[in-house]
Amino acid sequence: MSDANRIEKGMAVIAKLFGSAAGRAKLPEDFRRITAEHLFGNIWSRPGLELAERSMITLAALAVLGREAELRLHFRGARNLGIPRAKLEEMMIHLAHYGGWPVGVGGLRALDEVCAAMDAEGDAQT
Amino acid sequence: MSDANRIEKGMAVIAKLFGSAAGRAKLPEDFRRITAEHLFGNIWSRPGLELAERSMITLAALAVLGREAELRLHFRGARNLGIPRAKLEEMMIHLAHYGGWPVGVGGLRALDEVCAAMDAEGDAQT
Amino acid sequence: MSDANRIEKGMAVIAKLFGSAAGRAKLPEDFRRITAEHLFGNIWSRPGLELAERSMITLAALAVLGREAELRLHFRGARNLGIPRAKLEEMMIHLAHYGGWPVGVGGLRALDEVCAAMDAEGDAQT
Amino acid sequence: MSDANRIEKGMAVIAKLFGSAAGRAKLPEDFRRITAEHLFGNIWSRPGLELAERSMITLAALAVLGREAELRLHFRGARNLGIPRAKLEEMMIHLAHYGGWPVGVGGLRALDEVCAAMDAEGDAQT
Amino acid sequence: MSDANRIEKGMAVIAKLFGSAAGRAKLPEDFRRITAEHLFGNIWSRPGLELAERSMITLAALAVLGREAELRLHFRGARNLGIPRAKLEEMMIHLAHYGGWPVGVGGLRALDEVCAAMDAEGDAQT
Amino acid sequence: MSDANRIEKGMAVIAKLFGSAAGRAKLPEDFRRITAEHLFGNIWSRPGLELAERSMITLAALAVLGREAELRLHFRGARNLGIPRAKLEEMMIHLAHYGGWPVGVGGLRALDEVCAAMDAEGDAQT
Repeated sequence: MSDANRIEKGMAVIAKLFGSAAGRAKLPEDFRRITAEHLFGNIWSRPGLELAERSMITLAALAVLGREAELRLHFRGARNLGIPRAKLEEMMIHLAHYGGWPVGVGGLRALDEVCAAMDAEGDAQT
Repeated sequence: MSDANRIEKGMAVIAKLFGSAAGRAKLPEDFRRITAEHLFGNIWSRPGLELAERSMITLAALAVLGREAELRLHFRGARNLGIPRAKLEEMMIHLAHYGGWPVGVGGLRALDEVCAAMDAEGDAQT
Repeated sequence: MSDANRIEKGMAVIAKLFGSAAGRAKLPEDFRRITAEHLFGNIWSRPGLELAERSMITLAALAVLGREAELRLHFRGARNLGIPRAKLEEMMIHLAHYGGWPVGVGGLRALDEVCAAMDAEGDAQT
Repeated sequence: MSDANRIEKGMAVIAKLFGSAAGRAKLPEDFRRITAEHLFGNIWSRPGLELAERSMITLAALAVLGREAELRLHFRGARNLGIPRAKLEEMMIHLAHYGGWPVGVGGLRALDEVCAAMDAEGDAQT
Repeated sequence: MSDANRIEKGMAVIAKLFGSAAGRAKLPEDFRRITAEHLFGNIWSRPGLELAERSMITLAALAVLGREAELRLHFRGARNLGIPRAKLEEMMIHLAHYGGWPVGVGGLRALDEVCAAMDAEGDAQT
Repeated sequence: MSDANRIEKGMAVIAKLFGSAAGRAKLPEDFRRITAEHLFGNIWSRPGLELAERSMITLAALAVLGREAELRLHFRGARNLGIPRAKLEEMMIHLAHYGGWPVGVGGLRALDEVCAAMDAEGDAQT
């Protein structure tokens, strides 16, 4: 696969996950390219897991590592893939027992704020 | 639900996941009871996620947190639930990008050893 | 012990620790119930450690894990249990050596802000 | 306080905590001196917390950070200070809820092995 | 070396790294003294590594541990030591592969904001 | 750059760092390829940092994250690049203050064992 193909493929996954939220962050050009080409073009595009499965394990990792900004972005991605809010809540309740209670409290609070923001954006578009 | 019911329900999940590997660790009676009653009887038994989904997000959490002994136990659980080895490998490759390369290297090495041990046990039983 | 008893017991611990700060967070009903019933009703209510000892080891865990929102809440809890500010400062100085300097810097800054907020609330009530 | 005084003071704390287990590790001279002088002579010797309190929060930090070798050493220290095994077990059960279940499983297993080793050493001395 | 000498030496390192940004945080007097005397006077002043090397490994540690407030302060320190922004960006791209993608995203975003703030301060001084 | 070129470039870096220690681990073919192509061919081969600088920040990340197996491998890599043992010891003493004392104790112990093993291998070859 050529590099250009990989980037195109990665950009398609990014758009599917993050829509208009993609590209908001101000990051160096090289890192943006590596993210599109390698992380989304190479890794997220591999066939062994469905997108929704990749979304779920990514959320699990971000939640227990306490990486809140990225967690919020991927909650948005999960909702855009059609994963119901109740399922994401259930994940955070489960993970509170593997990463500690603050994983549950912090994750559920972040999820609530992301869902509220997405609802407000949806209302604004109508 | 009564406490006894919860424990029974939890023990059923534990048996499904870990089979004869359950109960190997020498832990205080109170912690064993809380684990059966609360962690497996209350949490793993909730309806919002399938067992295989709980297994996958548990593995993701354990892998990025570097909790290797528990990771090995839950690889075993995942295999007992019927999750194919290739899918678990794919998860570790993905998670190497969210928790760092050692998550991939360490997780894949542990998986290889768990699978080898399970194969040897299977051969021994025939 | 019945589930209702556990929840009542847990709510009493929560009130003792967090007073009016409890219940501020907007979390799913199920997680709130599990927190009251299991975390505070089952675990914090066990006899093997005094409340102040549970508060101290909880603070140690939250500080080194860098879980700042929960750390702030439990600093408040520690003050409500009567643990002097000087003792909490000493804990953070000690823990800077086991979790790294940022544990000390971040923990002490958070403690300062929590104490200032509690003082202001106290003034407001008089 | 002179540097020599600090080292002497630190060595006294180290002896009280670890007894003959101290000094087993093969570490560079400079790091051993800094550990005796600063960590134990300066920090552990400060008046704001009792030795047993420092031991407890150190154990909490090491348990949730998953630093198992140091956790084992400080379980030994805690026992030498007279903290009962049941109290250390209770701490690990509590901390499983703030750092995740593997903190409980791993901490309790390590504690069991440390206590068994100390019992065997005690028998050997009689 | 006397304690006063150590503090003086430590204050010189602090000034070189953080300039006017030093001393902004409101921390207990004892912790400020230990930081100047031990962390900067004893450790950062040791001959085995150059200041720029200490800055780089400190940044690596803070980035992968997700300690963002301290990371920002040490980005400032690194710039004051003359480490070019491009080199710091390269470090974050590299570390994204050892601590996970959020290390890269979060570190690069923090770096961008620190550099913008320093540029604005520089403009304000002219 | 073609994929084959990247892999070749990555393999050259791997050989320079790990020599005969490379390739010991039994990992899935896909992960080995991604490691050679992307991690070493794309990232470690970028011009913005020297190999020894990449080695140092990698060691800092692995040490504070407590990833001991990878830390040992990269101590070996650092020695193969000609970084003196004394400098690696100094790094661990420094990092004990940013990731906590166990980072120093564990890192220095691992370094001692790696150096002893490399010396023994060197003797065996003569």
